[in-house]
Amino acid sequence: MNEPTDKKCASRRKFLVGAAGLAAASAAGGAARAGNPNNQPPNIADWTKQLGDGVGVRAYGNPSKYEKTVVRRTVSWLTATPESSVSFTPLHELDGIITPNGLCFERHHSGIAEIDPNDYRLMLHGLVDKPLIFTLEDLKRLPRVNRIHFLECAANSGMEWRGAQLNGCQYTHGMVHCVQYTGVPLKLLLEQAGLKTNAKWIMAEGGDAAAMNRSIPMSKALDDCIVAYRSNGEMLRPEQGYPVRLVVPGWEGNVWIKWLRRIKIGDQPWYTREETAKYTDLLANGKARKFTYEMDAKSVITSPSPQAPLKQKGFTIISGLAWSGRGKVKRVDVSLDGGRNWRAARIDGPVFDKACVRFYSEFDWNGEELLLQSRAMDEGGYVQPSKDALRKIRGVNSIYHNNGIQTWALKASGEVENVEVG
Amino acid sequence: MNEPTDKKCASRRKFLVGAAGLAAASAAGGAARAGNPNNQPPNIADWTKQLGDGVGVRAYGNPSKYEKTVVRRTVSWLTATPESSVSFTPLHELDGIITPNGLCFERHHSGIAEIDPNDYRLMLHGLVDKPLIFTLEDLKRLPRVNRIHFLECAANSGMEWRGAQLNGCQYTHGMVHCVQYTGVPLKLLLEQAGLKTNAKWIMAEGGDAAAMNRSIPMSKALDDCIVAYRSNGEMLRPEQGYPVRLVVPGWEGNVWIKWLRRIKIGDQPWYTREETAKYTDLLANGKARKFTYEMDAKSVITSPSPQAPLKQKGFTIISGLAWSGRGKVKRVDVSLDGGRNWRAARIDGPVFDKACVRFYSEFDWNGEELLLQSRAMDEGGYVQPSKDALRKIRGVNSIYHNNGIQTWALKASGEVENVEVG
Repeated sequence: MNEPTDKKCASRRKFLVGAAGLAAASAAGGAARAGNPNNQPPNIADWTKQLGDGVGVRAYGNPSKYEKTVVRRTVSWLTATPESSVSFTPLHELDGIITPNGLCFERHHSGIAEIDPNDYRLMLHGLVDKPLIFTLEDLKRLPRVNRIHFLECAANSGMEWRGAQLNGCQYTHGMVHCVQYTGVPLKLLLEQAGLKTNAKWIMAEGGDAAAMNRSIPMSKALDDCIVAYRSNGEMLRPEQGYPVRLVVPGWEGNVWIKWLRRIKIGDQPWYTREETAKYTDLLANGKARKFTYEMDAKSVITSPSPQAPLKQKGFTIISGLAWSGRGKVKRVDVSLDGGRNWRAARIDGPVFDKACVRFYSEFDWNGEELLLQSRAMDEGGYVQPSKDALRKIRGVNSIYHNNGIQTWALKASGEVENVEVG
Repeated sequence: MNEPTDKKCASRRKFLVGAAGLAAASAAGGAARAGNPNNQPPNIADWTKQLGDGVGVRAYGNPSKYEKTVVRRTVSWLTATPESSVSFTPLHELDGIITPNGLCFERHHSGIAEIDPNDYRLMLHGLVDKPLIFTLEDLKRLPRVNRIHFLECAANSGMEWRGAQLNGCQYTHGMVHCVQYTGVPLKLLLEQAGLKTNAKWIMAEGGDAAAMNRSIPMSKALDDCIVAYRSNGEMLRPEQGYPVRLVVPGWEGNVWIKWLRRIKIGDQPWYTREETAKYTDLLANGKARKFTYEMDAKSVITSPSPQAPLKQKGFTIISGLAWSGRGKVKRVDVSLDGGRNWRAARIDGPVFDKACVRFYSEFDWNGEELLLQSRAMDEGGYVQPSKDALRKIRGVNSIYHNNGIQTWALKASGEVENVEVG
């Protein structure tokens, strides 16, 4: 465990004092229940008095019935139909960096394609020496890699451009997840097909009813893209592109084509609907940024947050996620006063390239109202900006690529609200 | 991607030839289906012609209906009752190092305790300055860490001591899984209670009907043990000790007490039933090894394996898992001839302390019968031994701590059998 670097942060000694008080209070309550805390355990609970379910009750397990609120949530008014909608990861209910497969957010353009893996095909064609078609079995027989990466929708936090102030990080930041992918490096497939000298772009197309498609420059395709079929060890879930999706590390989620059906190789981008009418960033002057693939460094405090209020004063843990599409997260800072003063947070657990990191910052809360913020810095030196700094450059027309600093107002009651600071 | 180090292994060039042939064959088949493979995608499938399910179909997601065989499996004859039995992780159906929570093997002594988290308590008492009782909320308010560790049952591969040759790695090696845990370092809790100078051991006790308990030396308790409440980000599953279990990195699974209810601090081990009648290793001379906590370095080829036979000749990937309870896996070797010749496998993905690593070794299979083996080496220099070498030292009375090298016989048909080699 690393020590916090800022003096303002609760020192180790201070934590011990704070937490001991907390635990002593519990011990007092427990003693009343137990009668004799020095020698006896608490009263025997019902669950210790009777046999539980045996093995085989769940061949494939599910969470406890007491965790029923830990679910993806949708917003009915966001899109015209549920087939073109989104569900959000409950970031406020999770910890660490791995997202369980069952809670990874969804975003579909024409619903969840249901593909029989025996009939699945992936075609490579266009500017290649030899067009190829792969079955799923073919792909599984090729050399594979395992990589942990975040996936973020370009529209994550999109409602915040105009200050919608959605009430919870599940809604403001829940279009991000982080899992371990297994699959074939796209480079290997392209090498097998044999690239013509003028092969500069690929178009990836999905097998869903939207035939969702995007152009990707060859430099990225040959770098770290993966034709993936597994997530956290098991086969991809249907809503994540079963049986095969494209993994484009660090880039906006819409280019991670799900239900991947076809990769065409060409000499220029295709300017498909999804990269002209959609997924461009309209600036204040009427021009639009296009091909804005990379997800800039970003972070969010997941607890405390509007869906995870504080229940008591004293020793308190700020917990959050940070990520960057340009490499590793190098540092995360936390502010209690709306960005006037910053302290370095403790990054816990592994730090992977283009993956989420978990950060913590501990402090003693005396009940005063605070403005909580976090800001990520990546290994390239990029620092997450304020929302207003972003608005000055980009205006408020776009719904994409809002990586501005999020502010949570902690009230004296322990409740937390999504607010704007100047 | 690292290149294999042994000349016997398929070279990069050889892979490309082999795989191109494979893909060309598929392309021919695909061409027949598509009519014009140079310019047209394969025939439009039904799933591209109609809208799929929208978001919100599954608030908590599950695998595809086509993956129904990817489940934990039980063996009815293994134990007297399902409440004292085991289910096995389908290692042959997984890849990478993270095990999905729903597929982590189970081993219970009195079934799955169903604990209401609001009524959960953890007591620390015995040789401490101040006995403490923690609620779940108390634990969640203390500084936490995230660590990826394997958990292996002491009896994993236990049937192989006498050569039972169970037909599949799910049954021979499926009592291991690897997830990311989130929880409080046990050291912090012990420090809060304040250890007496003669505090040398702890006893951890579960809240299940077995009140499963084990003694653990204080040196380990103060080292890397975690009082964990999350697995892969979400709360522990009921069968894994919801809401709280002890994580004892690198040590046999039975000391990772589930449904953790009590930690007593003492000056010597308790010699409970679970560490005298059970979980000791009876040697040939009638003496028993006791407190054999550490899991020695071990590995298994998960594919090909009896449940994952080869379907065709040509370029073939050997995939497997390796782990060590004494630190990081440093190297994994693979043999095709029953241990006469070895080649270094490629370890892919992150290598964590006391965690599973994924290894691959590629070769061209010409249809000849082979004896596939793997052996792990850890950073301490320990090399996984043969089963016979283990038997010479330990006899065949025990069912615990069999980390001997596993042999799979690959038949000309592609089928794989569990065999013994001299």
